Formats: sequence, C-alpha cells, structure tokens
Amino acid sequence: MSARIPAVELPTLNAHIIEAAARRALEEDLGELGDATSEAAISPETRLRAAIRTRKPGRVAGVDVARAVFALADEDIIFEVEAPDGCDVAALDTIAVVDGPAIAVLAAERSALNFIGRLCGVATLTRSYVEAVDATMARITGTRKTTPGLRALERHAIRAGGGVPHRFGLGDAILIKDNHIAAAGGVDAALMAVRARAGHMVHVSVEVDSLDQLAVALRYSPDVVLLDNFSLDDMGKAVRLVGGRCTVEASGGVSLDTVRAIAETGVDVISVGALTHSAPALDVGLDAID
Amino acid sequence: MSARIPAVELPTLNAHIIEAAARRALEEDLGELGDATSEAAISPETRLRAAIRTRKPGRVAGVDVARAVFALADEDIIFEVEAPDGCDVAALDTIAVVDGPAIAVLAAERSALNFIGRLCGVATLTRSYVEAVDATMARITGTRKTTPGLRALERHAIRAGGGVPHRFGLGDAILIKDNHIAAAGGVDAALMAVRARAGHMVHVSVEVDSLDQLAVALRYSPDVVLLDNFSLDDMGKAVRLVGGRCTVEASGGVSLDTVRAIAETGVDVISVGALTHSAPALDVGLDAID
Amino acid sequence: MSARIPAVELPTLNAHIIEAAARRALEEDLGELGDATSEAAISPETRLRAAIRTRKPGRVAGVDVARAVFALADEDIIFEVEAPDGCDVAALDTIAVVDGPAIAVLAAERSALNFIGRLCGVATLTRSYVEAVDATMARITGTRKTTPGLRALERHAIRAGGGVPHRFGLGDAILIKDNHIAAAGGVDAALMAVRARAGHMVHVSVEVDSLDQLAVALRYSPDVVLLDNFSLDDMGKAVRLVGGRCTVEASGGVSLDTVRAIAETGVDVISVGALTHSAPALDVGLDAID
Amino acid sequence: MSARIPAVELPTLNAHIIEAAARRALEEDLGELGDATSEAAISPETRLRAAIRTRKPGRVAGVDVARAVFALADEDIIFEVEAPDGCDVAALDTIAVVDGPAIAVLAAERSALNFIGRLCGVATLTRSYVEAVDATMARITGTRKTTPGLRALERHAIRAGGGVPHRFGLGDAILIKDNHIAAAGGVDAALMAVRARAGHMVHVSVEVDSLDQLAVALRYSPDVVLLDNFSLDDMGKAVRLVGGRCTVEASGGVSLDTVRAIAETGVDVISVGALTHSAPALDVGLDAID
Amino acid sequence: MSARIPAVELPTLNAHIIEAAARRALEEDLGELGDATSEAAISPETRLRAAIRTRKPGRVAGVDVARAVFALADEDIIFEVEAPDGCDVAALDTIAVVDGPAIAVLAAERSALNFIGRLCGVATLTRSYVEAVDATMARITGTRKTTPGLRALERHAIRAGGGVPHRFGLGDAILIKDNHIAAAGGVDAALMAVRARAGHMVHVSVEVDSLDQLAVALRYSPDVVLLDNFSLDDMGKAVRLVGGRCTVEASGGVSLDTVRAIAETGVDVISVGALTHSAPALDVGLDAID
Amino acid sequence: MSARIPAVELPTLNAHIIEAAARRALEEDLGELGDATSEAAISPETRLRAAIRTRKPGRVAGVDVARAVFALADEDIIFEVEAPDGCDVAALDTIAVVDGPAIAVLAAERSALNFIGRLCGVATLTRSYVEAVDATMARITGTRKTTPGLRALERHAIRAGGGVPHRFGLGDAILIKDNHIAAAGGVDAALMAVRARAGHMVHVSVEVDSLDQLAVALRYSPDVVLLDNFSLDDMGKAVRLVGGRCTVEASGGVSLDTVRAIAETGVDVISVGALTHSAPALDVGLDAID
Repeated sequence: MSARIPAVELPTLNAHIIEAAARRALEEDLGELGDATSEAAISPETRLRAAIRTRKPGRVAGVDVARAVFALADEDIIFEVEAPDGCDVAALDTIAVVDGPAIAVLAAERSALNFIGRLCGVATLTRSYVEAVDATMARITGTRKTTPGLRALERHAIRAGGGVPHRFGLGDAILIKDNHIAAAGGVDAALMAVRARAGHMVHVSVEVDSLDQLAVALRYSPDVVLLDNFSLDDMGKAVRLVGGRCTVEASGGVSLDTVRAIAETGVDVISVGALTHSAPALDVGLDAID
Repeated sequence: MSARIPAVELPTLNAHIIEAAARRALEEDLGELGDATSEAAISPETRLRAAIRTRKPGRVAGVDVARAVFALADEDIIFEVEAPDGCDVAALDTIAVVDGPAIAVLAAERSALNFIGRLCGVATLTRSYVEAVDATMARITGTRKTTPGLRALERHAIRAGGGVPHRFGLGDAILIKDNHIAAAGGVDAALMAVRARAGHMVHVSVEVDSLDQLAVALRYSPDVVLLDNFSLDDMGKAVRLVGGRCTVEASGGVSLDTVRAIAETGVDVISVGALTHSAPALDVGLDAID
Repeated sequence: MSARIPAVELPTLNAHIIEAAARRALEEDLGELGDATSEAAISPETRLRAAIRTRKPGRVAGVDVARAVFALADEDIIFEVEAPDGCDVAALDTIAVVDGPAIAVLAAERSALNFIGRLCGVATLTRSYVEAVDATMARITGTRKTTPGLRALERHAIRAGGGVPHRFGLGDAILIKDNHIAAAGGVDAALMAVRARAGHMVHVSVEVDSLDQLAVALRYSPDVVLLDNFSLDDMGKAVRLVGGRCTVEASGGVSLDTVRAIAETGVDVISVGALTHSAPALDVGLDAID
Repeated sequence: MSARIPAVELPTLNAHIIEAAARRALEEDLGELGDATSEAAISPETRLRAAIRTRKPGRVAGVDVARAVFALADEDIIFEVEAPDGCDVAALDTIAVVDGPAIAVLAAERSALNFIGRLCGVATLTRSYVEAVDATMARITGTRKTTPGLRALERHAIRAGGGVPHRFGLGDAILIKDNHIAAAGGVDAALMAVRARAGHMVHVSVEVDSLDQLAVALRYSPDVVLLDNFSLDDMGKAVRLVGGRCTVEASGGVSLDTVRAIAETGVDVISVGALTHSAPALDVGLDAID
Repeated sequence: MSARIPAVELPTLNAHIIEAAARRALEEDLGELGDATSEAAISPETRLRAAIRTRKPGRVAGVDVARAVFALADEDIIFEVEAPDGCDVAALDTIAVVDGPAIAVLAAERSALNFIGRLCGVATLTRSYVEAVDATMARITGTRKTTPGLRALERHAIRAGGGVPHRFGLGDAILIKDNHIAAAGGVDAALMAVRARAGHMVHVSVEVDSLDQLAVALRYSPDVVLLDNFSLDDMGKAVRLVGGRCTVEASGGVSLDTVRAIAETGVDVISVGALTHSAPALDVGLDAID
Repeated sequence: MSARIPAVELPTLNAHIIEAAARRALEEDLGELGDATSEAAISPETRLRAAIRTRKPGRVAGVDVARAVFALADEDIIFEVEAPDGCDVAALDTIAVVDGPAIAVLAAERSALNFIGRLCGVATLTRSYVEAVDATMARITGTRKTTPGLRALERHAIRAGGGVPHRFGLGDAILIKDNHIAAAGGVDAALMAVRARAGHMVHVSVEVDSLDQLAVALRYSPDVVLLDNFSLDDMGKAVRLVGGRCTVEASGGVSLDTVRAIAETGVDVISVGALTHSAPALDVGLDAID
C-alpha cells in the first residue's frame, strides 16, 4: 500500500509544534487517571488494527498530529498513512491505519480524531473557497480568528486546502486596523506615526472602510490595503484606484455565495475568517479492521 | 449600568483553567515580539474605551476568559461586564466594556474575541438544541469531541447554552464503545470483563447499535445505555425495553432537524457532538466608544 | 532470567504521567548543576551494574517510574525487571537490575529509589489491609488524601496492593461531604439541590455521620453512602437499613486493628486514607553487583 | 486574635516554590472539570467560614502552602493564621481560619489539607527526634529520601520540627557514598580522584562503613564523615578517632528507640531518612465554624 | 524624585515576556532551596533600601525586567525607577531604588542585576554604533544572533540604544541566505522557487555576496538585499546599482571602526550581530542606601 | 574521521538541561510558524551536508547543545563531532558536521550556532585567563553573573576553558557579601548570626573589603574569604594574614592585564565575572560542504 499524492505541496509542520499539541490533548483527555474503560474491558495483550476513515468527502489535514498522539500513547503503535495532508478523500476512504496494543490505541482514539476532524474541516472548507474562485487571480487566505492554541495547525490546514498562509504575525509587520486608526486619530495620523517610527523598511498593511480612506492610505505607499466590507462596486473601484501599486485584499463578510463575485472584482487576496472560526469538523471515525 | 441576569444558573470556571487558556492564547498571538502595529501607530499615553459587541443574536459564554486575557495584557485595564455568561443577546448588544491603555487593549483584542466568538458559538448552538426539545423530558449534552485544549471551556459553554455537562471523564467511570466491544470480543465479553474487574461499584455506560445488543447489555445492569444511530422506531422500542431501569442516551447523527423527534421517543439524554466540533463562532467585535 | 508473575493484574500507567513524574524528580535532585560527586570521583568510561534490592518484604509498585528515571538520565542504561508491579517480594529480593554508565546510574539512583520506596510502601500497606479483610465481602480503597503531585502513581500503587481504585474524580460525580452539607444547610438541602441541578443521571455519593442522616440520605437514592466514623454497631445497623439499595462505604479512623471488624459488619467498601497519607516507605537500595 | 509564637525561628519559603506546588496540587485535584459537588450542592452566594483544625497534637508546617492553595482557588478567600509554621499544637487546636465563597473554599480544601497534613507530619516526627536527643551535642537532619516534587517543602518542615537542613545539594559539594566507592574502585581511589579533579576548595563528605574505611578517609581531610550503619560501640570509637578534625554524621537505621544512644556516642549530626520517607501525616480537618 | 526622560521613545515590553524571563532567572538562581545566606545572616524583620547604580556610563535597558524580578521575590518590595529604559546614565548614576524586606531584596539582587547588566550592555553598544553613523542615512539594527531565551529582551535593548528592530521573524517573511542558496542550487533557483510558491505578496530579503549575485537578485524585485561582507568599494557600487529600488542592508564584519565608512556608502541599514552576541555587560551594582 | 582529544577532562552535561535549553531556543526562533524561507526556497527532498566551522581560533564548548538542537529539529539529522568540548581549534577548523534534510538543518542552524558561539566564547575567554596564571597556584573560576537561563551551560563552558566551577549555589552554603553585611549590621553581626543559626556544619564564605574586615572575619573560621577589590599590596598581606587557614579568593575588577599579578600574590582562587557577563561570542558559521 503506497500513500496517495497530495493535491497541494505542503511544508512539514515543525515537530515541536505537533508534539506539544498532541501532548496537551492527551493530557486533557486522559488526565491523571487514564482510560478506565479500556483497562477494565480489554486484556493488555489484545492488539487492535483500525482505520481512520472518513464519513464524508473532504480534504485531509492533521495526519501528522494524529500520528504524534498515537506515538505518545504508546511508542509501539504502528501508524501507516494512506492519505497524507493535502489529499482529497471520498466518504469511507481510509486516511491512516493504526496497529498496536488495543488499550493504548483506544486511549488515543478520541484525541487523534478530534485533531483530524477539526483540521480536515478547515482544509475542506478552504478547498471550497479555493474552488469557488477558480480561474480568477484571487487567492484565499485565513485571518487571526483561529482557535486559541491551534493557530499553527490551522494555518497548516488552510494551506492543505489550497489557501495561502496569512502573511504576517503581529511581531514585526504593521497591520493597521479600524481600532488602531481610532486610537491614533485617523488614517493619516496612524500612517504618519508608523512612517515616522518604523521607517520605510517595514511591511505595512492598512485596513480601510471607504474609498476616501483608501485614497488617503495610498499616499503612504502601503504594501497591502485591506478593503473591509466594501460593496462589490466599491471593490472594483478600489482595484482600479490602486492600479497595481500594492496588493489589494478583501475581507469582511465573505461567504461561499459571495466569494466568486468578490474575486471577479480583481482583488489579489480574499481573507476568510470562517475558514478557522466556523469550519464544521469533517466526520471521521476509527473502525476496527481485520 | 448593572449586569443582566443570565438565563441559566452557571458555576464559575476555576480561575486556574481560565488563566492558563488566556495565557496560551496571548502568547500565541503576541509571540516573542509583541504587537508592532500598536507600538508604531499609537502613543503609550492614549487610552481606549471599547465595547465587545455582538453582530448577531446569541447566547453569551466566555466573558471571564476575555476578562483574563485583558488582565494579562495589562492589569490596569478595566473590564465591565454587561451580559455575563448565560445571557441572551441581540445583534449589536454590548457584552462587556474595556477601558485602558490603547496599546494593551489592542494587543489583547484578537485573543479575547477569539474566545468569546467560539464559546458564544457553542452556547448559541446548544441553546437551539435545548429549545428544540422544549417540553420533552430529554436533556441536551455534549461529547468528548471538543477542541483540543479547550474542553473545560467548551463544557462550560454547553452549560451556558442550557445543556447539561457530559457526565464522566475517562478516568474512573466505564464507557464501553464500539471499539471496546470489538477489542473485547463482543458486548457480553466486554461487560463480563468490566464486572469482574471493576465490580459493582463503578458507573457503567455501554453503547449499543441494535436492540439485540441492548438486550444483552441490560443483563449487566448498566447505569446508562447509549443508543448509537438507532432509527426513531428502534429508539422508541429501546426506551420501552429499558423501562426506566437505567438512563437512555441517544447519540449519533443528531441534527436540529431530527432532535425533536428523537426527544419524543422518550430518551433521557441526547448527546450532540456538533455542539463543540462544528459550532460556528458568534460574530463579535470590539468597537471603540466615546 | 524471566520476570515474576504479579499477584494482581494491573493496567499500565500512561506513559506521559510516568515521564512527567520522573522528569520532575530528576530535575529536583540534579537541579541545574548535576551530580558533582560522580563527575569528580568516577571516570566517564566506568560502567556500573547494580540491583534494586529490598531490605524488607513487601509488595512491589513503581518499577516503571524507576525505569523512566534511569532512561531520562541516560538512554543507554539497560533496565531489566525481575519483580514487576504487583509482585510480592521478600527481604533482599531483586526488583530490577540496571546496567549503564556509572555516572548516569548514580545520578538517577536517589530519584528512582524515592519513587520505588514510596510506591512499594503504599502497595505493601494496602496489601496488609486487603489481607486483613480476606474472605469478607469488603474491598479496600484509598481516598483523595494523596501526596500532592503523585495521585495517579499512588492510586496505581493501591491497585498493586490489591485495593480497588477510589472511584470518582471531583469532576463529574457528586461526593457530598460534611462541609458541603454544612454549606448547603443540611443533608436534605444538599441532596435536593443536587437532584434539582444535576438530575438523575449523575452518580451521587453522600457522606453521613449518623443513622438519622443516613435515613434522610436514602430518600434521595444515592449510589453510595459513606458512613463516616460510625461505631461498629451503627455500621451494622446501617448495612441493614440500606438493604442492598446502594453501595455502603465505611471511612474514618480505619486501622489494621479495626478493619476486619468493620468488614464483618457487611459494608461493601472500606476507604483508608492512611494507604497514601501515612504509608512508611519500603526500604530499598541500589547494590552494585558483578 | 493574634498568631502564636513559633517554637523555632524559620526562614520564609520562596514564593515561587510555594506557588508552583500549590498550583500543581489544585490542578491535580480539580483537573479540567472543577468540583462538581460544590457546584451542584451549594449556591454561588454562600460563604463559608471554617477552621483548619488538628485532630492530634503536633508541630505545624505548611501553613503558607495552604494559604497559597486557597488564594489560587479564589483570591477573595481570607486566610488568617493562628499557629504559623514551627508552633506546637494540641489536638483540636486551630491552625488557620479561612473565610470565603463556599464553593471555592471546598474546591481547595483537600489540596490544602494534604499539604498541611503531610508537612505537619514531617515536622512532628522531626520534633520527636530532636526531643529524644535533647541535651546532647547531636543535631537532627534529613536526607535526600524526600517525596519526589516536594523536597523544598519537606526540608522546610524538618526545620519547623527543629532539625537542621540537610547540608548540600548534589550540585557542587562532594558526597561520596558506597556506590561511588564501588564504581571508583575503593575509598582511596574515590578520594584521590576527587582531590585531583576538584581540588582543595570543595566541601567533601564521605560515607564509610567501617573503622578501617574511616581511617583511610581521614587521610584526605574530608569535611564530614558519614558513619553508615555503625554499631554504637564503633560509633564511639569513630568519634574518638576523628577527634574533632571534621564533622561526624551517623546515618542508617536510626529510629526513635536508638537515636538517643547514638547521640550519646558524641556524633555531631544524625541524619534520619524516615523524617521524610515514612512520616505519618498529621490528622487535620476543615471544620465549618460560625 | 521624578524619573528622567529617555533619549529614545520605546514601546513597553509585553508583561508576559518580562514575567517569564524574570521567573526563569529567579528559579535558576534560587533553585529549590532559596538563599541560605540571607536566611542565616539577616532577621526577617530587617528592611533594606538600596540603589541599582551604574559603575560606568551607558544607556539604560532592562529596568522593567528587574522590577519584575523583585516583584516575584516579594510583592511588598517597592521599586522606584529613576532612569527608565532609553536614558543615558553616567557612572554612579542611580537607575532605580528598591525598598523592602532585606531577605527578599537580596534573594532577587543577582537575577535583577544580571538582566540589567546585560541589557544595558546591549543598549550601550548599540548607542555607540548609532552615534558612529550620526548624520548619515544608515540605521543600525541587530540580527538573529541573540542569546538563546532572551531574544525579545535583547531586541528591546537594541531599540533602547537607538537601533531599529530587526525586521522579520522566520515565520512569514522570506530571508534567503547563503545556505538557502546553496541548498536551492543558486540565487536564481532560490528566488524562482520563492516567487512560484510564495507569490508576490510576501516580503523577500535576499543575501548576496557579490555584485554579480546582486544583479541576479534584483531581477526578482526583492524588498531588501543584504550585502554580505562586501568591500566598501563594492558596497558603493551596489547602492548605485540598486538605485533606490529596494532597501540595501550591509552585514558581516561590521565594527565600530568600520561602521561609519559603511554608512557613508549610502546603504540604508547596517545589521550588527555583535550588538547581541558580543556586547560586554554594563557594570551595575546594588548599593545599600540610608 | 575520529574526534580530537579535548585539552581538559569534562563531565557530561545532564541530558535534561541540554534538551530544555535547545527546545527553548528552537521555539523562540521558529515560533509557531516555522521557517518560511526554507519551505519556500528548498524542496523537501533536498539534503544538506554542512560543517560548523570556526572563523577565529578558540576553545570549544556547547557541541552537545548544538547536537540537541539539530536532533529536535529532525531526528534524522546526523551529527558528527570532530572537536568536542574542551578542544582547542584554529580558525576554519571544523567542530562538527551535520547531514540531513536541508529544510530542517537550516531551521536549526541559527539556534545551534548561537549556543556554540556563546559557549565557545566563554570557554575561549576562560582559557586566556587560565593561561595568564599558568604556573601559579591560582585557579580561575566564574561567578553568579551568568546569562539568565544559561547558568548550567556557562558553568560547563568555564570548565571547558580550564576553569574550575564556581563552588556553591545559593541553596545551602553561606556566602556573606557586602549587602548581607550591611543588612545584618556589620561583619561581626553577620557572622555571629550565621554561626548561631547555621552551626559549625555549614560551609561559609565571607566577602571582605579591607584588611580590618578580614581580621574580624577570620575569628569565625570561614572556609573561604573573598578579597573584594583589594590592592595587590593588600592582597599579599591578606594571604599572609590568612596563613593557609582557609581558602583565599580574589574578586572584583579582574582583567587579563591584572590577573597574573593577582595570582602572584598567592591567592588560591580568582573569580572573574567577565567570563560569563562579557565574553564575546566566538565567530562560527555553518558552511555547506560536498
């Protein structure tokens, strides 16, 4: 059995991020006391071979996290991947097969499935958005509206779904949003302060909510303008106003119903918070096999 | 301004759970480098007063986590709650007001909103299920299909939505599920092993997928039987077969469309994985106010 | 050399619990600076083969924790178990043999022995209680009076001694003790509140300190009644009053002198705090062997 | 009410050590789920005033850890100390009074009592040894046979009992024990290696098990000689042989029955592993008061 | 006494970063055992008022970390800042005054001074470089050659010295260095791969070691070119070749002797690894005052 | 290729210390997001073989930490040591060779080099001091002025440079410094308090700043006297005054220019804070090799 070829090329997640997430989930589920049911119902000698199977079609993500969960539960569990992150799967497809001591496999089952279900959910929803804008210039990305504690994993899942990673952390780039503008006293004031303090070397994104604000912002040569909740009509005007001088990103109220029209206005990027804050989990289960 | 009265009575979450979650989220969002935008755009002396406001109606949960996030960012931020956990809110209602140094408020904004959005989402979805079974005997509960790292918070959100907490951890009670039965060699074998090893003192739940399995299970006097993916018809038969000897729980494939009919079969509890694995976030924002 | 057969069947402790305990102990003993003595006195090339030996007879527990301590100190240390958890040992019996770089073996020695000594102590004391109630219906269990930080390990040691695990965590089951009754305003008030809020699905234990309180408690169909510091005479009356309707647990002031008489009153379970809060360590040492 | 005056003068434990221990205990007891009983049985508005009271006489230790446990559970709990660490208490004496929200007080009760019970147990046993050697030159100290994770607290409890702290960590001083001697190839070899590598600046203790070994060891001017399991007779000879050139410490098999005779041989220090590895907990409880 | 005005405007470091660093240092210095000297030599009632004073002139950084160290040691220590981060100080100037229980002040002394000494050292060295390029267009920045565990603090110290923060983390921006070029198979291959995979939205820096490589790199419109170890002559040619199309950064072998000449070539930024990897600590001490 | 023989014999650092430091550095450098450059520029299949090479001559330290960093990044990276800790290296010598997936090698590069650069810097500076006092009786040691978080590693580097470890932690030995003397009310008061409370068993060091203070201190038979900032002349007098009764340590203002003269006064030990607080990093790089 050889693993499938993913639909997208994906970097590997750092091992220390995967392991920390896996460990935290196992500790949360097993707590101090372990899995009383397996211990009582199943002999320590019993082995279990089982498949992680989809119940619905989708795009795979999170397989390496599941592998880490099983490895932490018992280093003797064998984990064979059939559909690595980035693969498309149909209902009842096998993502991976685990084989090991039944008690350990079942102790890890829920934690592993919770990761896979959630991350496949993000990848699958992302894929839908990516397909919806097919053959336009627009790329789909996420936002910082991620699940607390899972940001790196969810970013990875967005890439597995064909999205591009959200571009900058809080650390070094500048993302001027509505509340920054309010606190600074206007777009002009915010951008002047940024240019004075941070100089010309820093990547600057600025969120605008009108064509007027956009016009002001463009005077400061931002790297990206985010059009927040623009009408389709204004979005088109904004794209023409920018005229290629910087990246244009649309955000706010994007749905599968509206995303194609947004893409067709000519924006470069569409950021979709729902990819991480509202993706339903993909239904996956662990089925004993012979 | 006095806070509203919640629709449900709720225990307080343990402070150490809230603080750990808040800390992890802030560290994830701010990383080692902090919030470059606020630092560049806003003077350290500027203060910001802002309201956490809903964009859609829903049930509130997670306010204490948001409070903890702001307190960690700067202990001088004042946080006034208007709608505590368990309250119903309309669109544009204010959940809480924060007031403090603008740089710190904005550094914490996203982490705080991510918690509130997600936990209100769980509470709001739970409320829908609870209302759907109104005036039946059935109670709504969640499952262990929670977000890794957030189980305690999501359980709390289920209670804020009117659900009852899922009853047992893995630690000490026995929950015999399909894979345990498979690994043990059948319901009979699993229950005999449990009774032999764990004695009569332990709370035992057993999941069955047919009336035949149910009949076998009942011989061992379980405390709860979980009817997994039963038809409505079989569910009714199961309730009658049990005849009050133990709690009957329905699980598997429950949706808002089907939950009322399930409740009307007479089951005691309906467990809904979607409450935590697929609840869309409630849309909330932070609006600067005067 | 093949390992002995334990006197009791025991589930394996979760690897993450063992490793965390082992790591904390090593860090505490070695601190930032390591073991200056071994480094100064012993050449890095010297190997040491040594036996973990009892000085007194007892019941074994904690072997897997000791193994983890040595593995953390140096992954090249070989650890062969002769008497796994649950075995009875005489004085001067070998529990396990370690073989590896002398510096690492000696750096880990004290931490490993501290675990084994304490956990064998708990198992050995538990065995004494279990033997004292031999051929009665009573089972011996522990309480939450465990060593802070070692609860899971001490619970495991109780099982190694032939006891049954204490049944419920604080999380989900209800254990109404004297102070809850005081704070709620009486047994009646406490049980009514519990039944109103938690419903009939929750496992409820209630501690009573008189036959009158017991009579009140029984009206609420608890799953377990704990007879706290009852006289033998009242205990017998309580067992007859309960009449099999729920589990009867005796607790408070149980000693090896009194436990048999308590068991003979017919109670189902006897919980003994001393198993964990006052068990003397079993004397074990590490002896260099050829 | 003013606090009593301790029988011994004691340094304050570092806040970060206390807090870490308190946090770990609370997390272990409450886990992710909190205290279901208090939440179900007791109204959030109910307050509880309760006394931590002894059931048996003893020496107090651990009060500051208990205070930290209650503070972590709810910062609004008031904690008034009546008998600080180092005080002697009779049965039914009050050590401290707590006053706060009943749910939080009861959530913290068991963790706080577990610390106090154990640490008072260590202090009380130490006091017995100290009293047994009264009016001799010998001082009582502990060993590294402490409870994993609690070393700093147990060392403190030994001091509260009138003992002296065990003198050196593993880090920098040299303590040559039997296995070091075995691994190095004899006392001579071990001490020569130490003198060659560590020079004359390092504090050196060496454990000897015979007068012959003692004679060898003295050639290397150790700071301390540990007489391991010497007969009383040999101990006296050893004291005379040393003749004040270094500290003489007796260890191994010390009990309350033998400690006085050991002290009267003239040794300077007697180290007693049982102070920490086998001290029974002092029985303490939390009693609601008006 | 009012605090001085800093020479540079500085953002506040995030509280959670400061506290984590302070806690780790205290734990490292005090370990499990605390400060035996203060406990033995000083009465718990003694208070100490002392000044953190420079022995040499310099630029201040790290005051808030020192404050956090003292606060962790004892929350009753008062800490008054005279010269906040960013101030210039002469020898024997007072940076801050602490006042509190002598035992706690002295327990925290070394950890606090270690932070201040090191961070003032970084700020002071940075100031020298900044002054050396005065009245040129060049700005001074650091590199990722920071002390493991202290990056955020050292970045802050560079800013306190008048430098600009190093611009991007590893996370999202692209910094192509010599080894990436080697592994990718040349500058062309590396930049083509980056452009294909990461698109035009990502900020790209590329390090070049010759004018030829620079010419290749410019074809891909990087945001920054790093001239690695260029001669002054080639640096000038590079600036002219770039002609303002992107930021030009000089790095490699920069010293106080050479930095002015480098700045005069017209580069925009000079990155100096020595700011963090080789800055001597500023000599600061804690002097008891009346 | 066989590894070189170190110039000094060195104990191995504890694995748990190395791993914790390596993990913290990697997490700091990679954060949640990983290394965007390698992922974009380099194919996952590309392997890289590269040498850690010096740019300047020096003494090696930190190789095992670098190994741990690479192992954490990818357990498949091969790490071959050519010049282990304690070796002398010339410019362009190879310390170690790494071979593995290019993406992982480059993700770990900076963290590994930061450790090696800093620790080699400490070892190299120590070597200079050790050579400067060659053929005197004086030994070189460090102080507690270490980098926060790196004390154990820096102590190890001092030993790699030929220094002796600083002798005692804060935990158990007594080091009376100027501020203790101030807070206690003089040398006499401090030493009397120490002798009264800590007895004759404790190792006592006392810092004196004049011959008069020295004379007072010697009455209390300290184990070590630290001559703080004595003139060479007074140092010689102090050595004669002590007359071999205890160890004499010189500290304060020691430099490479003055250390030989200090050694020739006859002091036993010279402690040099600069070894850790001001050692410039050794310049090391990672060079791709064929």
